[in-house]
Amino acid sequence: MNRLFHGGNLTSASLLYKIKIDRFIDFSANINPLGMSPEVKNALLKSIDFVPYYPEPYCERLKAEIANYLGINKENILVGNGSCDLIYLTVRSFKPKNVLIPVPTFSEYEYAVKINGGRCHFLRLSKNNKFLWEPESIVEHLNGIDMIFICNPNNPTGSLIAKEALLSIVTICKKNNVKIVIDEAFIDFVENHESFSMVRDATFIENLIVLRSLTKFFGLAGLRVGYLTGKSQLIKKIALQQIPWAVNALGQIAAKEALKDKKFIKETRNYIQQERRYLWNKLKAIEGIEPYPATANFILCHLSKEDMNSSFITEKLGYQGILIRDCKNFRGLNNKFIRIAVKKREENLKLISALNKILPT
Amino acid sequence: MNRLFHGGNLTSASLLYKIKIDRFIDFSANINPLGMSPEVKNALLKSIDFVPYYPEPYCERLKAEIANYLGINKENILVGNGSCDLIYLTVRSFKPKNVLIPVPTFSEYEYAVKINGGRCHFLRLSKNNKFLWEPESIVEHLNGIDMIFICNPNNPTGSLIAKEALLSIVTICKKNNVKIVIDEAFIDFVENHESFSMVRDATFIENLIVLRSLTKFFGLAGLRVGYLTGKSQLIKKIALQQIPWAVNALGQIAAKEALKDKKFIKETRNYIQQERRYLWNKLKAIEGIEPYPATANFILCHLSKEDMNSSFITEKLGYQGILIRDCKNFRGLNNKFIRIAVKKREENLKLISALNKILPT
Repeated sequence: MNRLFHGGNLTSASLLYKIKIDRFIDFSANINPLGMSPEVKNALLKSIDFVPYYPEPYCERLKAEIANYLGINKENILVGNGSCDLIYLTVRSFKPKNVLIPVPTFSEYEYAVKINGGRCHFLRLSKNNKFLWEPESIVEHLNGIDMIFICNPNNPTGSLIAKEALLSIVTICKKNNVKIVIDEAFIDFVENHESFSMVRDATFIENLIVLRSLTKFFGLAGLRVGYLTGKSQLIKKIALQQIPWAVNALGQIAAKEALKDKKFIKETRNYIQQERRYLWNKLKAIEGIEPYPATANFILCHLSKEDMNSSFITEKLGYQGILIRDCKNFRGLNNKFIRIAVKKREENLKLISALNKILPT
Repeated sequence: MNRLFHGGNLTSASLLYKIKIDRFIDFSANINPLGMSPEVKNALLKSIDFVPYYPEPYCERLKAEIANYLGINKENILVGNGSCDLIYLTVRSFKPKNVLIPVPTFSEYEYAVKINGGRCHFLRLSKNNKFLWEPESIVEHLNGIDMIFICNPNNPTGSLIAKEALLSIVTICKKNNVKIVIDEAFIDFVENHESFSMVRDATFIENLIVLRSLTKFFGLAGLRVGYLTGKSQLIKKIALQQIPWAVNALGQIAAKEALKDKKFIKETRNYIQQERRYLWNKLKAIEGIEPYPATANFILCHLSKEDMNSSFITEKLGYQGILIRDCKNFRGLNNKFIRIAVKKREENLKLISALNKILPT
């Protein structure tokens, strides 16, 4: 079983394209283009002297801050070393034998299931249907299934499932004794995200776990902080699998500070919503690129020209210091798809200009 | 199965003793009293702007730096989220059914084995024998054993096994098809540590894995970086269990810098060796305290007075803002043992003065 590569690997890109790490414009990782909050940066600069001390082993103060941020109880929260850590912890805790994964999606669900001895069953979403699915159709696929992973909004497609539909899936799954893990790593970027999120519902629904990331929206990818919510019994069970000091001290400090900076949160929301629309329209205008509806901070694009493929474009851009995500290694996609993060205006313009040269009208 | 507490939990201590976190003198965590290298601090201050970027998923550059530091190959190294992460990864990778653990020792070995469905068998070391053991005696205990954990020097006893003895244990274990995990988290503090370490031997001995920590000696506890060495096949097998981005970006940067600062490494060695002797002699002079031979940056003490116990002393000192490690929850110890880290001269003097008041001659 090979591990797949992910976006955002600047060191590899630097070796490949012979360009210095800090010279890249990186559209391959879906991080807030505004970076981190200036309050977080200040807090980190002031906290360097804490480095020689152990972090809180189980993030008690950060958990309290998250509880406050969401208006739920601490007992319903587990903090992890990025949401990836939490995916693996969840799978290890429940050891599902058969897991349903709608694809294309984030590849780590599959890997986590497999290394824990489970089998993955894939629900292939159709590009013609914009990677959307009829929630009710799920019932046909639940035979023998113990767990289902739903990424909402989905990475890399951007497809978003309405809360009503999710609630009906939860009910169907409950009847069939299936656990649902909803990964909301990108939900903060969604317009009216509150009306889509199940993060609070998980605290009282017994077969539901919701994953959240602090690395994308809050620009803390380097520090690895995520959390999950669920009923306290589930949280306790998953916590047993976790090592002490799983989250580093600066990650805990940064996350606490990030959740408090309402101004930055608002700025990010406004920025992404405006810039996503702008970039989407610019991409749409390029002949040979068909962007799918975007809901988060990235845009999946189909390459419609026959003589064009994802590796060619990725490489062409790479040598110009522009990184995008070649989607050919996503299960359910192929070399006709690329994923592009929404970045700052001037960066987005550089990408558009480079694409226009590669794909002349 | 309850999880045991560890030293260095300042948040808990602050709640318990109603003292601000930064007012404690912490002898309960075994961290370099000089903190981190000033070069590391500078590198961290300059690197805060990297926080929004993903860390290298598998620490390639740090691995190269460690390889260079040890004079071994990258293929023989795996970097983890602190050495605790590596303990769990190792157990998960080999799923040992029966594990031999000489106790008292670090409690996470036991926990890692148990949550992975294994059974622990304890080799109880005697305090009368200064917690030392005859390596040859191990053969009597290997019946049915798949794995053995040896902490060298041992936390919390400070007992140190000579390399000759380790090599003979390795040979015995090999014959019996037993994997050995040697945890060298504190070996950098040992005098002539090179002559005790198996870190390079692990690269060519097929049943040996050696764990190293960068958090204690290099003062990076807050950033969680450890590594292990072994034959490349073992490394590959263990790496399969690891999540991507397991080690945060600042941890990777700090660790790389720390290994390069030879001046700080030398200063730390000199400081610890001198100060350990000084503190040991001062403790020895207190009636009712019997320090065991110390080899690393901590000293295990037996409380010999009948009316004295570890909780009483820990609490008395705690209310004065001085934290020590109550050893009553170490398997194989009881409420007659405390562990004290070697700190700076002025801090050590404060501890001695406080102890002299609690244990008047």
